[in-house]
Amino acid sequence: MNAIIISVGDELVLGQTVDTNSAWLSRQLAAAGCAVSAHLTVPDDQRAIERAIRESIGSCDYLIISGGIGPTEDDLTRQALAGVMGVPLEMNERWLGQLREFFEKRGRPMPERNRIQAMIPRGAEMIWNHAGTASGIRATIDEELIAIAAMDDLYFHIGTTADDRKSQIANHRCEVFVLPGVPKEMMLMFQRDVLPHIERRGGGACILSRTLHTFGMGESAIAEKLGELMTRGRNPSVGTTVSGGQVSLRINARFQSRAEAEAQVAAAVAACHERLGDLIFGEEDQTLQEAVATLLRERRKTVVTAESCTGGLLAKFLTDVPGSSAYFTGGWVTYANEVKAAQLGVSPALIEQDGAVSEAVVTELAQRALGRSGADHALAISGIAGPDGGTADKPVGTVWIARAARAEQKSEARRFLFPGDREMIRDRAAKMALAMLRYHLLGRPMPF
Amino acid sequence: MNAIIISVGDELVLGQTVDTNSAWLSRQLAAAGCAVSAHLTVPDDQRAIERAIRESIGSCDYLIISGGIGPTEDDLTRQALAGVMGVPLEMNERWLGQLREFFEKRGRPMPERNRIQAMIPRGAEMIWNHAGTASGIRATIDEELIAIAAMDDLYFHIGTTADDRKSQIANHRCEVFVLPGVPKEMMLMFQRDVLPHIERRGGGACILSRTLHTFGMGESAIAEKLGELMTRGRNPSVGTTVSGGQVSLRINARFQSRAEAEAQVAAAVAACHERLGDLIFGEEDQTLQEAVATLLRERRKTVVTAESCTGGLLAKFLTDVPGSSAYFTGGWVTYANEVKAAQLGVSPALIEQDGAVSEAVVTELAQRALGRSGADHALAISGIAGPDGGTADKPVGTVWIARAARAEQKSEARRFLFPGDREMIRDRAAKMALAMLRYHLLGRPMPF
Repeated sequence: MNAIIISVGDELVLGQTVDTNSAWLSRQLAAAGCAVSAHLTVPDDQRAIERAIRESIGSCDYLIISGGIGPTEDDLTRQALAGVMGVPLEMNERWLGQLREFFEKRGRPMPERNRIQAMIPRGAEMIWNHAGTASGIRATIDEELIAIAAMDDLYFHIGTTADDRKSQIANHRCEVFVLPGVPKEMMLMFQRDVLPHIERRGGGACILSRTLHTFGMGESAIAEKLGELMTRGRNPSVGTTVSGGQVSLRINARFQSRAEAEAQVAAAVAACHERLGDLIFGEEDQTLQEAVATLLRERRKTVVTAESCTGGLLAKFLTDVPGSSAYFTGGWVTYANEVKAAQLGVSPALIEQDGAVSEAVVTELAQRALGRSGADHALAISGIAGPDGGTADKPVGTVWIARAARAEQKSEARRFLFPGDREMIRDRAAKMALAMLRYHLLGRPMPF
Repeated sequence: MNAIIISVGDELVLGQTVDTNSAWLSRQLAAAGCAVSAHLTVPDDQRAIERAIRESIGSCDYLIISGGIGPTEDDLTRQALAGVMGVPLEMNERWLGQLREFFEKRGRPMPERNRIQAMIPRGAEMIWNHAGTASGIRATIDEELIAIAAMDDLYFHIGTTADDRKSQIANHRCEVFVLPGVPKEMMLMFQRDVLPHIERRGGGACILSRTLHTFGMGESAIAEKLGELMTRGRNPSVGTTVSGGQVSLRINARFQSRAEAEAQVAAAVAACHERLGDLIFGEEDQTLQEAVATLLRERRKTVVTAESCTGGLLAKFLTDVPGSSAYFTGGWVTYANEVKAAQLGVSPALIEQDGAVSEAVVTELAQRALGRSGADHALAISGIAGPDGGTADKPVGTVWIARAARAEQKSEARRFLFPGDREMIRDRAAKMALAMLRYHLLGRPMPF
């Protein structure tokens, strides 16, 4: 069972609005066991909408269209669907009555142009809108109509003969649902009148997903460790995505029953943990800062920060988490060299000799932050975030990070070279400092 | 001149990631006078990617594909494009060398699977990636190849004869650009190596857009001030969008010549400035922090920060801007009350009496930060970011912000109640502190 989603709107193809409807619909459909094979976004243009519908109905069981059913001249989805079905639009008197009532209640006569919102293609069903003025539409496109559309769309013949094609569409039917583009109205209508229908037809089939996050190792290194778990076509499948320096694992399982899907996902998650161990710091919405916060809380430890190039970002990360006062009391943003001396007493001679971006200075920053606070752990960062300030020896992206602990004699300092622009370099540096603390709290060496 | 955008990724069709790339690309293309006729989103499936490419090349001048060029097995865009072009993938030795160097610099050998990131279809050009390991691809699909694809995709014949079709594709060529799916890398590559090309080919009709940013006043208040400038159907049109506490004005003008579009946009921008005055702090990608940075630099002034609930975010904002050392030397993150006393000498009795979130304490923080630094201006923030810690008197979202200046006797402190969650409250508080400094530097009272 599969679906295609079409979003209609000039604002979408112009990029003025980001299409969040398709992602939301995809998640709902997947959870109901209905795979989504494509999203299409087209402008408020009847021909473009018709083409998108024709291209889709032959290759999906459900076609979900959102948008283009408002009261204005540029709302043309009703007309396009009627065009593909080869039928006229007809007034739905029930919804027209509802519309009139809606406006009366608000003490206004119904504007003439709202009448279109009660019109649906002949032979289609009206779907009640519990949050707005646009009625939805449900229509069944049968084998015959698909064949007509296919005359215009021989595309998916590739490598197949006309007879193959005929047998492909034999008994195929596509249910089309037209929903409002306004997210609130779309969601309500989908959940009330579309989802139950799909769940009935699904018969329990279920797609479950889980996401695991890693930080610090590249995508290809992670993929190597995962090995055959990532082989294409496996079920559950394991894929990787990269965002904000994190490599995340997406596990998708598609099975006939929820119970089986759950068991298989759990097994795949366990296999990923076995291969990657501590590299996985969290799941789903969990952030690296939350993982570190949890460790600090569990161990009843606190941390202090001294930041140069990250300019407060590490402290900001540490305080992203509600209740962060349990482990973070404060820190220093020592951006200028004079401030490193004035606030934390780092020797100007040392800065002069080794430079602010050096093992000696970053270690001093961490040690002195520890000394001037009551914290158990200290993190210090000094680097060149760019775009200027790089040298052959210390190019832009060079960052020294130090970690010190009250319970240890020696602190740990490492030099990194982060790629990207100023924002990326600062982000990766602050996250790497968190990662250094995390591995220390776990009592394990950093694997990267 | 028109374009189609294809986004590739299982995470997109599964709805686990919202496709923001297509919207961004659409805005860039529109600004270059290139209309976008559709977005397509397909899974990491070679056949689906090939089909999307075949369906598109006959009906657009530019095909922009993002995603599917990572190093793992589920990255199949290179293979799909080669498939459509009917050519093999070939190693680009230049990028392979670059890749090896990238890994060597990081003291690691290049994983074998990264080799694929240097492979491009025979006859295509490699595009340099300045922020990651995946090379981009530029390929020209000519009339002949389009005709072959069209044999499989007779769709856009609708209502046309085979001869019409032939004349349609005669002399048609489609430029295909394959970009990374990681937004940062995609944006950088698009701006450096795709946009200039499109702009050159552009010439004639032109859609121009301008965005103006305001902070501090609500959307409906801004709309009221703009009045009839926002009437639908006007050209240029003026619309508002809200993001990150900012209300932004989008001005779109569609005219036959670039000169006319530019003149009309300039007039609309002037009209907006006339209505909104200082409320507009910047344009396009300019941030509030950049606006403040520019004012500080022009006036050769410096600023110091003392933050409680924002935990370093204000300092982070101030150092977002390259060259921020010209006006920012450092700051304090005084998250816990003891640290407010220890680092800045705020009297514990005062904190005890008025609470940390109070006019007296935030004023002390600002004054003492000023006293302990050589800065000209100081900003201090103390508030309740939640989710816990609110009271009837001081609910979650209550934030006191103080601004002090060496040249003034009196400091200024204001209480705000910011809506939203922890992240929003912290973001708005730090931005409001910037806004207070901005109005002070402009020598004008805050209009909100």
